[in-house]
Parts: sequence; C-alpha cells; structure tokens
Amino acid sequence: MALNLAVVGQKSPALTFEYDWKAPVLYALGVGATDEELDLLYEGRGPKVLPSFAVVPGLQAIGGVFGALGADLTRVLHGEQQIVLHRPIPPSGKLSTVAEVTAIYDKGKSAVALIAARSSDSGGPLFDNVFTIFVRGEGGFGGERGPEAPKADPPDRAPDFEISETTERRQALLYRLSGDLNPLHADPAFAKMAGFERPILHGLCTYGYACRAVLRGAGGGEVARLRSLGARFTGVVMPGDTLTTRGWNGDDGRCLLTTSTQDGRVVLSSAIATLAPAR
Amino acid sequence: MALNLAVVGQKSPALTFEYDWKAPVLYALGVGATDEELDLLYEGRGPKVLPSFAVVPGLQAIGGVFGALGADLTRVLHGEQQIVLHRPIPPSGKLSTVAEVTAIYDKGKSAVALIAARSSDSGGPLFDNVFTIFVRGEGGFGGERGPEAPKADPPDRAPDFEISETTERRQALLYRLSGDLNPLHADPAFAKMAGFERPILHGLCTYGYACRAVLRGAGGGEVARLRSLGARFTGVVMPGDTLTTRGWNGDDGRCLLTTSTQDGRVVLSSAIATLAPAR
Repeated sequence: MALNLAVVGQKSPALTFEYDWKAPVLYALGVGATDEELDLLYEGRGPKVLPSFAVVPGLQAIGGVFGALGADLTRVLHGEQQIVLHRPIPPSGKLSTVAEVTAIYDKGKSAVALIAARSSDSGGPLFDNVFTIFVRGEGGFGGERGPEAPKADPPDRAPDFEISETTERRQALLYRLSGDLNPLHADPAFAKMAGFERPILHGLCTYGYACRAVLRGAGGGEVARLRSLGARFTGVVMPGDTLTTRGWNGDDGRCLLTTSTQDGRVVLSSAIATLAPAR
Repeated sequence: MALNLAVVGQKSPALTFEYDWKAPVLYALGVGATDEELDLLYEGRGPKVLPSFAVVPGLQAIGGVFGALGADLTRVLHGEQQIVLHRPIPPSGKLSTVAEVTAIYDKGKSAVALIAARSSDSGGPLFDNVFTIFVRGEGGFGGERGPEAPKADPPDRAPDFEISETTERRQALLYRLSGDLNPLHADPAFAKMAGFERPILHGLCTYGYACRAVLRGAGGGEVARLRSLGARFTGVVMPGDTLTTRGWNGDDGRCLLTTSTQDGRVVLSSAIATLAPAR
C-alpha cells in the first residue's frame, strides 16, 4: 500500500482538547515525577505543567492525518519528536489543535513523514509538536530524500549533569492513561507478536523523563524556562529499566542530552533542549 | 457546634457517578496494583474491578449528608469502613448512590456517626458502603452509646497468608486522583498544621492494599469472590511505609485480617473479609 502523498500540506479540522488539573498531574506521574516535585503533582501549587505534556494533545490530534496518510500501523516507527513552547502550559484549559503532514521524504527503503500539530488556546498559539514518523517499506516512490537530520553528538567531556531514575515495572500502565493506548505497551501477547519479550515503555514516556531531567539539571526546576525539546528515539526501553539522562550545556541556552538504559544503550540521542535564562 | 441529630434517617438525593474503564484502573494503581495484576490494569482484560473501588462513589456521595450533619472537618476521624458487594463491579457504568446517616452514637467525649451509601445501577443494587466517622468533642449529648463494635482478634497461630508491599513516596499523590482531595495527603504545610511530619497516606488507600492482599492470599485473585470487607483504622501510614497484611481463614468464607507497618504498628485491625467459594 503506497502512502497518500497528496495529504502533504492539508490541514486537519481543529480538534478540541479540554482538560482540568488532573490531566497534567496524571501525565507527570506517568513520566516518573516524585513527591519532591510537588509543584507538578499538587493543584494547590498550580499544578505547574511539564512542557512535555504538549505531546498529549499533539498525539490525539495527529490521529486523523495519520489515517489519511494511509500508513500501515504495523510498519510505523516513531523516529523523532520535537516540541516548541510559546508560553507555559496552563494547569487547565481548552486547546484547539490543527495537524498537518508537512513533508514526506523518500529515504530509499523507508518513507519519513513529518506531522506537525499546532495547539492554541484563547490566548493564541501555545505550543507546536512535530512527530517524525518512519514508515518501513514505503520508500522508493521517487520523492526527495529531504535534509539529513543534524547529528548532535555530546562533546568529549564529562556532562554538566547526570540524573538516573528507575522506571516502575507498571510505568507504561500508568503512562498510557494519558492517552496512548497502543496495546504494545500493555498486552503481553501483543508485545510478543511484535517481537518483544514483554510490553515496552512508550518512547514518549522516556521523552518525559528526559524533559524532567533537563528541567532539574539545567532549568532550575522552572517549567516556564523550557522553550523547546527535540529528541531521536534510538532504542527500546522496558518498564523497570533505569534511565540516565546526561546533559551538556551549550551556548544560547542550548543543552545537549542523551538518555541511556542501565546496560549503556542510548535510547534518546541527538536530543536538544533550549532554555530561557533564569528570571 | 453541636451535631444536627435530626439528619438521622434522612436520605440524600441520588448522586450519579458515571465512569469508564480508566477510573478503576487509576484506582487500582493508586492502591498499589502491579503489572502482575494485569487484569486490574488493562482494559483488554476487562478491566476487572477491585471491589474496594466501591469506596470511590461512596465517598463522593456522603459529602452532602456530611455537611448536613454539621461536623467540623478538623475534628473528624474516619474510624471504620465496611463495604458489601452484591455483584461484581462492572468496568464502566453509571451508578446512582443514596447516602443516609443511619445512627449517631454518644461515646462520651466523641460522637460516632454511621453513614451508609447504597449504590445501584440499571441492574439493581450493586454495593453498599458504611463509613463510621468519629467526631471528637461532640459526645455528651445524652444519646445512646450504641453497640460496642465486636473485636476480632487474630487467633493464636501463624497466619494463613502474609503479603508485604512497600508503598511509594508518591502513593497518596496518585491515590488522591481517585477523588479524596483532602490536602492532608498532599500539602506539607497543611499536614504540619495537623500535627504530622509530612502528608500522610489515605486510610482508604491502605484499605485498598488490604483488599488486594486478601484477594491474592485467600481469594485466588478472583475479584468476583469478595462479598464484604470491613476494617477499623488504628494508625497512621506514611507514603513509603511497608504494609504487611496477614490473614487467617475462618468458617463460611470469613477471613480475619490485620495490616501493619514495618515498625509493627497495626494500622488496620478487626478487619474481616467474606469470600464466596471458588467457582
């Protein structure tokens, strides 16, 4: 089945996402927030909203264009994720999100689709997502190869911070309550069919751990300072694995990140956060 | 402020509680269910609903009569909890709950109010709750002392099962998403004012751990077998404490339970579960 290339540039209808404080709290618990990050978990302190919560309405909104793209879900891999924050995310709200396939590149064997989802509320644009999706076996349609994603290797020195956390065995079962109900993350039989020993953690759950880590390691714990976070998914994480995020501070508020598991496999690479200066 | 004794026997308006599968899953995670209890955590297996989920609509429904009772919330202690299950709780539903103060007893210094909450769905009665509430300083109004609650001491022999689990430091922050938003369980300043070093675990969260324990220890893991569970709250649990539930099987499907913390304090006592025979 070939991809429907004609979807490029077509905007989806606006999808509404209405939430109260429980949604960002549940999300924060799903990506490992602890009682030492009470700002994220208690409505009496806002709650403050982890910037990576942006992926929750983003993922919901791309469902429609995903269908129009005609991608076989069993051949799809989430390659990269980028979020850009225009303002801090409010603790409750009513968001409107428009999704759009902005490009489909031909990488030879695979096709790569870039799907943007732009969310706004009554105050204007709030945040944007870009999902980079690999579709195995759908390349070779004669399309543009597209830009090579810039590699961002860590410098040859010790990181400026390093934060390790052990995920729970039930982590994916908690994370999925925030909306990604793919049985790959819950159902042992389904996971086995897909070639895994048991259900795997959501890549975007690991992404949330990395977001918490860079906020603590480089952002002084202030959620409002994160301007963007991009990362490439390069390995499978099992619930129960220990995630270690290392960060190297660069110029202009940039921080380069990697996240690895306890056996040294890099599961998030070429990850870059940008942070506003401390107030 | 004296209690309003005239509320005894007055039924509240029926309160509707509508839920989908995420509510019992979130509840089960809140009372410590693990990935080894996937039936409780995955909609692909129902999910099966922990019988102690009954307290969630029950607690919601007693709010109104609580106000009519005129009890000062700072003087209130949850003394005992009883649930009776008429049928297994469905994984989603629309329940109607009527609450009623069935008695107010005069224990001398304290008053004790018994508040029943009876829940039904389109299939008829589903479960009943009885909340036993102590109101300090509100006794001495010349009322009946009421029956002494029968003590149920464990027999002088080793338990038939013993299950230990360590709660998470963030356990109360997860449990409260199921509806009991008392800041005593989240807010360090509020907890300090109430005389605690830090926020404490909900008594009904411990109750949920005990329910899981008796199902595994005596009920073959079959949620449908639990007919009733009653328990007395006798001590404070801190998030992070280890809870050990011991059970002694008796006649007619009765199982006597105690739950203790790692330092040997009994936090649930006189606890009795009744279980239907295995099918």
